[in-house]
Amino acid sequence: MTRLPAPSPRTRVRRLPDRAHYDADTVAAVVDAARVCTVAFNWNGSVHALPTAHWREGDHLCIHGARASRMLQALTEGECCVTVASIDGLVMARSAFHHSMNYRSAAIYGRFEAVEDAAHKEAALRAFIEALAPGRWAQLRPVSAKELNATTVLRLPLAEASVKIRNWGVKDDAEDMDWPVWAGVVPLATVAGAPQTDPDSVVREVPAAFG
Amino acid sequence: MTRLPAPSPRTRVRRLPDRAHYDADTVAAVVDAARVCTVAFNWNGSVHALPTAHWREGDHLCIHGARASRMLQALTEGECCVTVASIDGLVMARSAFHHSMNYRSAAIYGRFEAVEDAAHKEAALRAFIEALAPGRWAQLRPVSAKELNATTVLRLPLAEASVKIRNWGVKDDAEDMDWPVWAGVVPLATVAGAPQTDPDSVVREVPAAFG
Repeated sequence: MTRLPAPSPRTRVRRLPDRAHYDADTVAAVVDAARVCTVAFNWNGSVHALPTAHWREGDHLCIHGARASRMLQALTEGECCVTVASIDGLVMARSAFHHSMNYRSAAIYGRFEAVEDAAHKEAALRAFIEALAPGRWAQLRPVSAKELNATTVLRLPLAEASVKIRNWGVKDDAEDMDWPVWAGVVPLATVAGAPQTDPDSVVREVPAAFG
Repeated sequence: MTRLPAPSPRTRVRRLPDRAHYDADTVAAVVDAARVCTVAFNWNGSVHALPTAHWREGDHLCIHGARASRMLQALTEGECCVTVASIDGLVMARSAFHHSMNYRSAAIYGRFEAVEDAAHKEAALRAFIEALAPGRWAQLRPVSAKELNATTVLRLPLAEASVKIRNWGVKDDAEDMDWPVWAGVVPLATVAGAPQTDPDSVVREVPAAFG
């Protein structure tokens, strides 16, 4: 278990510190568990937040988008806060006050840097596709130089980061334990449904990764 | 269909405007479809993002937390951007470049205001619980004045808001249509699993809302 540097003033969890984690393995696991993050940043005089697909390349979180995107350009010019959250359950208590959710969330602070090198950029995009479906990259129509050039890949070190996890049952006040209402946890998960093959797909067999 | 005020410079969608919506009904539907939002704001010299449960009360998005939370206090003192996103599918194209996701996301700009009136605050929290399980509020141990006082409820007008939706199939380049790789959409959804009754729950029958 790799411990990140000591929590910074920004990442030290103040409220409910029993839910806090700071080790790199836990940060990586929470990042890997979700396909979409939210990037918060300042641009053009306002705070903005952008939900976007992410993937992990070692100790960096990567995102991508169109080179022409002014928001993406702005990300390399200032600090941001990226959050990744998976909601794992509804915690239904005997009092409204103790209702809660089970979740895993990460907050990462820092500044994105652009992946400029074309080979590195292609490798990063390959890692993105392979995370969706192992083996798929080699089956795709190869990426063109023009497409690579039109795509910005940004990466953020998973360094100044913290995780909060709640993964336990109902915690009610002792005097409420006999209250006559159902108490328990309703698990939530993101699941894949039956794949919808494109009508024009010449390959009709659904890949095992989606089966 | 209620149309919100014309898009502001902050909410007007510049990239992929065919995915943009600005009407109030669509904003409300996207807000209602997810249980957790991300609140981006500036505090203490940094940009922050906070994943947190939300619910809707008419034309406001509500969040809540501990009165002692300094972050929540900061939200009433400055502008924020709240995003809500549901990920509905992986769009697997014939080229890496045209891979995409189906999603519904909302961005709402503005400033939270605290719900100070105790009766209003209780009604807002009731709406939060009822959205999880209709009829549950009346079954719970009643909320105490101390609990109400310890809880901050904040609300944000769903006024300066925009939605982006992608809900269609694979779009590949014409010359790639015969490429021999499976193309299609893998639907994703958040689903509830089998409820886990608390070992000490005196009521053992799972409510219909979770059955």
